[in-house]
Amino acid sequence: MREALIKGQIRIKELWIAEGKRSARAKEILRMAEDRGVPVKFKKSALLGQSMPGIVHQGIVALAAEFSYLDFNTLVDRSLDAPGHALLIAADHITDEGNLGALIRTAAFFGSHGLILPKDRSAKVTKGVKKRSAGAYVNLPVARVVNLSRALDVLDTKGFWIIGAAGEAPENIYHFDWNRNLILVLGSEERGLSRWVRNRCHQLVSIPSQGQVESLNVSVACGIILSEIVRQRRRDK
Amino acid sequence: MREALIKGQIRIKELWIAEGKRSARAKEILRMAEDRGVPVKFKKSALLGQSMPGIVHQGIVALAAEFSYLDFNTLVDRSLDAPGHALLIAADHITDEGNLGALIRTAAFFGSHGLILPKDRSAKVTKGVKKRSAGAYVNLPVARVVNLSRALDVLDTKGFWIIGAAGEAPENIYHFDWNRNLILVLGSEERGLSRWVRNRCHQLVSIPSQGQVESLNVSVACGIILSEIVRQRRRDK
Repeated sequence: MREALIKGQIRIKELWIAEGKRSARAKEILRMAEDRGVPVKFKKSALLGQSMPGIVHQGIVALAAEFSYLDFNTLVDRSLDAPGHALLIAADHITDEGNLGALIRTAAFFGSHGLILPKDRSAKVTKGVKKRSAGAYVNLPVARVVNLSRALDVLDTKGFWIIGAAGEAPENIYHFDWNRNLILVLGSEERGLSRWVRNRCHQLVSIPSQGQVESLNVSVACGIILSEIVRQRRRDK
Repeated sequence: MREALIKGQIRIKELWIAEGKRSARAKEILRMAEDRGVPVKFKKSALLGQSMPGIVHQGIVALAAEFSYLDFNTLVDRSLDAPGHALLIAADHITDEGNLGALIRTAAFFGSHGLILPKDRSAKVTKGVKKRSAGAYVNLPVARVVNLSRALDVLDTKGFWIIGAAGEAPENIYHFDWNRNLILVLGSEERGLSRWVRNRCHQLVSIPSQGQVESLNVSVACGIILSEIVRQRRRDK
């Protein structure tokens, strides 16, 4: 939230702070909100909890105006300019809002440089998605593209590795070397990766199942792969 | 599902198979269902999809009679008898059904030996939870205990390491050595681990955040930690 206020990534309509919240961080956010003319309301902590059930709000809630998508090329350039290797995520037609929200939260947690969504047959960053992201959407740039396959072609020309998550892939995520500029492509829960997208992947990787269950929720799978990426990149520092 | 039919872990009320499903696995399951007197219905694949939105059903759906919890001591003994180190999970008052379902699916995917839930202030394995587990609940034994702290004391006497997931813990999941009999304790999303449970942990571990977002969905966090456990245990074989 502090970041969002500094960078102005999102326009904040209103800020809610729990009564009695006195941390240095809360005070700093309050001061910044006042500087920027963002209205602040003090609410009972229990009320904040009720308005965002299932979500840890840490006593401060920002109500965003409207979600603004980032331009695809800007997103790509920024990911290349960021320190370390670029780390983008593409979601190939994820239609469930809960899944998209959890995916955004997970991607932001692991410091992904951004998420790419196709314009059609995909959930958009709606109010429900924002809520399910537990507010994390303010920390993750999202770009929408008309044609995901074509976007992957552009990334290919820019030297990105295109890595698809596919349950049946023989290469596993622990063995693959993640130290390169890459985009991780996740399929929909129902159909996995589409044929067009799959054809553009330089590598398919799987999370090895240890039991009888062969698939994972898409945000869980994303978290596991991002964790392995971060683990390898930390080790190699 | 094949496992469930073999082991009789759950009573299956009815089996739905997608029309035209002809894999060797489908045929084997069909034969087993007939042997055991389980009624089988053939449904259009699209209909199966509609009845379980957002879930990959692979053309076969089992309708369970009623969920039966396993006795706590039996669960613990079985986990110690299983090959390799024991791997149990305890969820300290997770009330959201979607989270519990996703947690069960994730735990089953990584071959956890079982899940322990407190009887009070916790979601039960309801119809909604089963659905959100994408059918994985048939592969994961679940025990309910009156007092989670006391259950952890029992595990302590049996030589289990009690490992709590706590965002602020200095020890990170990549550094910790997971090659031991252990129970991973996950807190509720709102409050984290309760004080009583936290006091019983031999070790607290965290998933290091790489961005501004400091928390993850509980099933995502569980998946990430289980993945690291499995990665280390595979490596050391």
